Amino acid sequence: MSHYPSSVLNLIKAFSKLPGIGEKTAERLAMHILRAPRREAENLSRSILELKEKVRLCSLCFALSDTDICDICANPERDSATLCVVEQPAEMVAIERSGSFNGLYHILQGVLSPMDGIGPDNIRIKELIARVEQGHIREIVLATGTNVEGEATASYIGECLRNYPVKVTRIASGVPIGGDLKYVDQVTLKRAMETRYDV
Amino acid sequence: MSHYPSSVLNLIKAFSKLPGIGEKTAERLAMHILRAPRREAENLSRSILELKEKVRLCSLCFALSDTDICDICANPERDSATLCVVEQPAEMVAIERSGSFNGLYHILQGVLSPMDGIGPDNIRIKELIARVEQGHIREIVLATGTNVEGEATASYIGECLRNYPVKVTRIASGVPIGGDLKYVDQVTLKRAMETRYDV
Repeated sequence: MSHYPSSVLNLIKAFSKLPGIGEKTAERLAMHILRAPRREAENLSRSILELKEKVRLCSLCFALSDTDICDICANPERDSATLCVVEQPAEMVAIERSGSFNGLYHILQGVLSPMDGIGPDNIRIKELIARVEQGHIREIVLATGTNVEGEATASYIGECLRNYPVKVTRIASGVPIGGDLKYVDQVTLKRAMETRYDV
Repeated sequence: MSHYPSSVLNLIKAFSKLPGIGEKTAERLAMHILRAPRREAENLSRSILELKEKVRLCSLCFALSDTDICDICANPERDSATLCVVEQPAEMVAIERSGSFNGLYHILQGVLSPMDGIGPDNIRIKELIARVEQGHIREIVLATGTNVEGEATASYIGECLRNYPVKVTRIASGVPIGGDLKYVDQVTLKRAMETRYDV
């Protein structure tokens, strides 16, 4: 690597700090920047800075936002009585993309994980309860992950909300649509069987 | 995608212009930048600009350089009578890394490719001949690729240099070291057989 001039080396090093980018890929990306139009490189450079400068968390739901209140929270056409609880902004984006939800969100910014020292005070559970206490929320949809931490977080939140006049639901787990039954893992199949419903 | 704030979208779009980076990966990279320390993001942003500002081509060998003459051309300990001709800077770096060459380089900045409209005038062949004409070069090692274009370029340069008092050699092709004979393609095996040498 050390046979490139230092400005090339610096960029290769900076690129290889990104997740999933090894030294070879970083080298290829740097060579691309070298050949790319100046405008494209400047645009990438500026976008990185702007992201760090502009993006903050929505003060209501903790989604990523360029403004104090995010577009979804500020949209009067959304059902503000239904709140979908997710772990991270990317999950919110995935649900939005599915077009299956018209309520508001609450992004926990993490998941309970005692092994990593992340307890209830480290994620936005207090803030969720505060929103429920304001009184006009009718349903909380728990859409945390279906791994151990996600399930534990969902249970914990369900427990916290037990004494509030709010309906708490959990998104369904089961066989993916289009999935072949014989390739579905046992745990998923068991859950699909346990949560079967009348048709 | 449109459910992210615009500063996040802009960075996702900028990342996905890089080669081999699809929309999903670009999203993951943007999320990383969001969580990364400010210093890391600023460093990446600055490195991109600095690359575009500082890197130029060495005026002797056309390698990437931060200065007018690259470190290799400026190094008095290198053998300036031997010139290794490669297509691109990355190939020069690969040879340097192998530690097998102590001469100087000549980077063609491309390869003959009539299909893409790239003829002898579009790559640095004239400049190579000018270096040979200065008279103190004894050997030219042709290290262009072993694909059709690389071979054609090597033949063409060999032809051009026929009337100069300079030895022209080509790097050997054959079975890779540690390669299993039964997995080596026919063309490579044929070449290895044709260019066999006495031991």
